[in-house]
Amino acid sequence: MNERTLGLGLIGLGLAGGVMAAAARTHPGIRLAAAAEPDPELRQRFEQAEGAPAHADIDGVLARADVDAVYVATPHQLHRAHAVAAAEAGKHVIVEKPMALSVADCDAMIEAAAANGVVLIVGHTHGFDPAVTMIRDLVASGAYGPLGMIAMWNYTDFLYRPRRPEELDSARGGGILYNQIPHQIDIARTIADRPVRSVRATAAVLDPARPTEGACAALVEFAGQGTANLVYSGYDHFDSDELHGWIAEGGSPKKRAHGAARRRLDGLTPAEERRARTSDFGYGARSPLPPPHQPHFGELVVTCAGADLRCGPDGVIAYTDDGVEVLPVPGRPWWPGRGDVLQELVDAVVHGRAAFHDGEFGRETVRTCLAIAESARDRREVFLSAPEVARHVPVR
Amino acid sequence: MNERTLGLGLIGLGLAGGVMAAAARTHPGIRLAAAAEPDPELRQRFEQAEGAPAHADIDGVLARADVDAVYVATPHQLHRAHAVAAAEAGKHVIVEKPMALSVADCDAMIEAAAANGVVLIVGHTHGFDPAVTMIRDLVASGAYGPLGMIAMWNYTDFLYRPRRPEELDSARGGGILYNQIPHQIDIARTIADRPVRSVRATAAVLDPARPTEGACAALVEFAGQGTANLVYSGYDHFDSDELHGWIAEGGSPKKRAHGAARRRLDGLTPAEERRARTSDFGYGARSPLPPPHQPHFGELVVTCAGADLRCGPDGVIAYTDDGVEVLPVPGRPWWPGRGDVLQELVDAVVHGRAAFHDGEFGRETVRTCLAIAESARDRREVFLSAPEVARHVPVR
Repeated sequence: MNERTLGLGLIGLGLAGGVMAAAARTHPGIRLAAAAEPDPELRQRFEQAEGAPAHADIDGVLARADVDAVYVATPHQLHRAHAVAAAEAGKHVIVEKPMALSVADCDAMIEAAAANGVVLIVGHTHGFDPAVTMIRDLVASGAYGPLGMIAMWNYTDFLYRPRRPEELDSARGGGILYNQIPHQIDIARTIADRPVRSVRATAAVLDPARPTEGACAALVEFAGQGTANLVYSGYDHFDSDELHGWIAEGGSPKKRAHGAARRRLDGLTPAEERRARTSDFGYGARSPLPPPHQPHFGELVVTCAGADLRCGPDGVIAYTDDGVEVLPVPGRPWWPGRGDVLQELVDAVVHGRAAFHDGEFGRETVRTCLAIAESARDRREVFLSAPEVARHVPVR
Repeated sequence: MNERTLGLGLIGLGLAGGVMAAAARTHPGIRLAAAAEPDPELRQRFEQAEGAPAHADIDGVLARADVDAVYVATPHQLHRAHAVAAAEAGKHVIVEKPMALSVADCDAMIEAAAANGVVLIVGHTHGFDPAVTMIRDLVASGAYGPLGMIAMWNYTDFLYRPRRPEELDSARGGGILYNQIPHQIDIARTIADRPVRSVRATAAVLDPARPTEGACAALVEFAGQGTANLVYSGYDHFDSDELHGWIAEGGSPKKRAHGAARRRLDGLTPAEERRARTSDFGYGARSPLPPPHQPHFGELVVTCAGADLRCGPDGVIAYTDDGVEVLPVPGRPWWPGRGDVLQELVDAVVHGRAAFHDGEFGRETVRTCLAIAESARDRREVFLSAPEVARHVPVR
């Protein structure tokens, strides 16, 4: 069966764009058509490696007839303008998380996609991880009974990766609340598949030199049934990949390297740090080969009445009444996780299947992130979807 | 230096009393003087092994001049009466967790101890674990900067250990909320050493055959600074000792035995199950030798500004800016954990040092447990200690 191939334009060749380029090369339904990137070095790397044109701005990509869809991986504050421009140019849109930093921006993007009849998908997040969608399907099948509790622990070096200044400024969408917690929320929401009822969260800024939230604990209650308990720290101390057989977030084996991220930054000026961001993480800096294990986002245990389902390095570990069984993740002919984002696009555009992680889904994750930030700031529970209990919220 | 030896009477020879007997034998400042226990088989086991008298009820123990202190390890609903009777007989008191099932009962116990000039300690809980008090002291020293977040995961077979009927009835203090969560709260409160400001929790009853809460997620915020994020499931599926080198809660090596607790119960009548409780867990059923590793209560990571401190099998694992270091727990000439309860008694009675885990401490843990139960039931945050929101605290 011949299948239509979608031409993809990458908008932004930083970390996200670089990895998505590699994923696009592995996907049989995607053709990497073009890129837009202000950094000339990254443009040059892209053109040489891909044999496809790299434009200095988005307009050049949107004008191309061989581009069917774009992947918007620009800084957060540009997501709305870039997604809306793409939709108005008739291009389908994948927009990186966070979808935006306000609900109004999300609404504008959803409306632009609807008005122009294009597909809008929010990703990549770890909600696309094959093990996560497998757990979602196992829970939805009812085979293990009702969902009780989703628990996640992730301890990383996030705060000490090289950064642009705005990435350390919470008011401009920096820190973990807008860049790492969306992964946990998307994982939880993908599995629970229910509206968020309320959140109670705390967050901590523990390093004055990186003055943005680097640790967060959140209790997310879903409407009707199910809870997600999220713990995240990006302070480069404990590394929870120690509990995951030293497989890194992306699915590759990892060397124990406690403190390495901090040491890499030692003595760098802000300009050098910004430069290091491109050299360490921009297009072409990472392996172009799909990882040998599954991507993951720390430890994940999903408690159902009949089993605990845990995300393991190569599959879902089912701890049932009778014993332990590893359920291998079905193989994919593409980069696991990021390739699943592209497949959701292909399914929607070519096969007319509604996307799971669509604009409304992304908007709810943004609302949940904003509620987590509000809960942490005001030190109280924040309700998202149950008006009848709003009176319980203390007024300050 | 000669030190006075305290004569200890064990009130109750179930699981708790049995382990405390073994701990008492290891403690140089304690002399096991007597026991009270209604079950004749357990009394006989005790008298034969210890060469000390076992009475059928508490009065026999309280009448003895060679008993300086008692350890109240009777069913929860008897704690108040037994602790008050002991205090009125001039005996110092260690009372098992939960201290009681109501704040009023705790108050009565605190008042009786004060009125009779005796020491009152609430334990054993894992708040006495040497690694936990070591983390408390490390945090208090300021060496690692301010406390951010305490995170705990514990997945056990708690719900499928043989039980008396009331142990499966939440209204009579059954289930994890009154029997396992107090450990997590005590650990968190020992380390944070601050009042609890509020709790938001969810709990789940996932097995109709064991109709009491078996899973709980709670976010505990402390006054001023610090958060504890607690996850517990007792459904005998995932076993978090898998993350702890297969060292069991008590500190002994453990065989992988997924589903074993459930299978042990298969086909037992309630009467047989009650009997199994004594034979599996009562006095004399467990090893009389101190464990080779440290006791623990699942995975515990304490995030400070300068390090994550994790409870490991043999010490505190400090993940600092520079690397990973295991800080061995200072050796003790007694059973780790339970012997530390006895040492707190000896310190208070013989050396006049104020107990850390005293009646007020225990009462706050009870208040926190009740608030967790209320938060889970009413699906809203419950405030414990901010005066301006004290109206949210239920009157019982």
